Amino acid sequence: MKVCFIGLGTMGYPMAGHLQQKGFDLSVYNRSKDKAQQWSTQYQIAASATLAKAVAEAEIVAVCLGADADVREVLAGEGGVFSAMPRGGVVIDHSTTSAALAREMAACAQERGISFIDAPVSGGEAGAINGRLTVMAGGDETVFARIEPVLAAYATRYQCLGPVGSGQLAKMVNQICIAGLVQGLAEGMHFGAAAGLNMNAVLDVIGAGAAQSWQMDNRAKTMLAGEFDFGFAVDWMRKDLGYVLDEARQRKVSLPVTALVDQFYGQVQNLDGGQLDTSSLLLALQQGAESRR
Amino acid sequence: MKVCFIGLGTMGYPMAGHLQQKGFDLSVYNRSKDKAQQWSTQYQIAASATLAKAVAEAEIVAVCLGADADVREVLAGEGGVFSAMPRGGVVIDHSTTSAALAREMAACAQERGISFIDAPVSGGEAGAINGRLTVMAGGDETVFARIEPVLAAYATRYQCLGPVGSGQLAKMVNQICIAGLVQGLAEGMHFGAAAGLNMNAVLDVIGAGAAQSWQMDNRAKTMLAGEFDFGFAVDWMRKDLGYVLDEARQRKVSLPVTALVDQFYGQVQNLDGGQLDTSSLLLALQQGAESRR
Repeated sequence: MKVCFIGLGTMGYPMAGHLQQKGFDLSVYNRSKDKAQQWSTQYQIAASATLAKAVAEAEIVAVCLGADADVREVLAGEGGVFSAMPRGGVVIDHSTTSAALAREMAACAQERGISFIDAPVSGGEAGAINGRLTVMAGGDETVFARIEPVLAAYATRYQCLGPVGSGQLAKMVNQICIAGLVQGLAEGMHFGAAAGLNMNAVLDVIGAGAAQSWQMDNRAKTMLAGEFDFGFAVDWMRKDLGYVLDEARQRKVSLPVTALVDQFYGQVQNLDGGQLDTSSLLLALQQGAESRR
Repeated sequence: MKVCFIGLGTMGYPMAGHLQQKGFDLSVYNRSKDKAQQWSTQYQIAASATLAKAVAEAEIVAVCLGADADVREVLAGEGGVFSAMPRGGVVIDHSTTSAALAREMAACAQERGISFIDAPVSGGEAGAINGRLTVMAGGDETVFARIEPVLAAYATRYQCLGPVGSGQLAKMVNQICIAGLVQGLAEGMHFGAAAGLNMNAVLDVIGAGAAQSWQMDNRAKTMLAGEFDFGFAVDWMRKDLGYVLDEARQRKVSLPVTALVDQFYGQVQNLDGGQLDTSSLLLALQQGAESRR
């Protein structure tokens, strides 16, 4: 099966690597050439010189890009994927975008006889490197069945959750749950430190009960150590929460804590923390305490 | 070892039962007599007629009561535990109270030659029944060592986390983490339902990743089913959050989401939901949506 992967960023770079290692007939493309060169050197497949060449014979094109505008340009723009790849193929979009963008791209694809699956991922850079991502997909079930071998190269969980856009909506549910969860954890760590508790001992005691979470298991100790320079960046979380809050507004759904936590992420950005892990919400709480002294 | 247990409520009833089953030389007392009679019938130990008789020979007195005022009355009030039990003994307070109350009780106890350990629990009614509670304790380490056999009768995790009050402060960390976490989960469930997603399928996909939590594992499906008539009551959570927010105010610590979620629990109380599980935050979100239509 001829597969093309476009977008060799933090996530896409190792995802494309898994496709190479699993023996797919692979082409790759990246807008910035130095990253493409680095990938080619590591995986011994020459990156295509142009997007048109990369997708010219591909049955499946997977992209992993940034925000709505990037995806629209690369897929539906002049000389983009939809105009250059063969009819009958499938485009998988692993970017986290709005659900409206997914529906717009699916409509553009259909005009050109191409199928579209929105397929945002979770699991972070570690999940991408280990090939243990989760894929939340939306689109036609029959089309989804065609792409499963590709997804299996880098994901351990993947499911088609409904029509196009459902993957993005499910990813939004994921990000909403995380926003409140991480802020609660940050407030707990902040309070415990202010109260003079031995927080490592406290975490040992409360860590298996009703307060337990993946975030507590994997982030509480780094938060206490003041380590935030890793993980899932605040800038990306804010991008995702922007889509969440737009979607909620359109549906007349109120998400009070999600909206508030989005503002706290804005504070972290103002502290030059945009590239820090989402657990850096603790810094916004600490900053408030600092500036009061 | 002669042990007395006072307070046969939802938690205390099965906790005292474990002490009977483990063969402690046990006396029990409860202010309301019908509950005491029920316990006596089930466990074949006559409840003491008065508090004074219950504690008269006890080396260790464990109490599990309600709010600060209840604990103050039963322990330090006229004819209370401190005045009636032998010198040299230990009082374990399993109630969730303010940290100031714990320090106040420890001082009263010390005047009468009695030791005091604050020891709030988590794990809920199910944990109490299964003997799998978690105990967060504060007090003297040597005293704590004396009471460990008692704690082991109904708890699988118990640790002394620092001086008197540390147990209550650690419990506060636990409740802070839960408040933000459950609200995030409720907003996620509310959004997903409004977006028309098959939420059981979404939970299967996202339930092992960065959004995972004990609350998601144990409450998401009951939330989707609209089942709230079980678990840890909103009235108790609000009591606990009241102590949290008072303590934070005294320490000049800002807990924005905890304070907001406390207000949402107030909304659930206004919906006559005070006895519902804490996951009923979803009802406050849905109520807002309902009244808009």
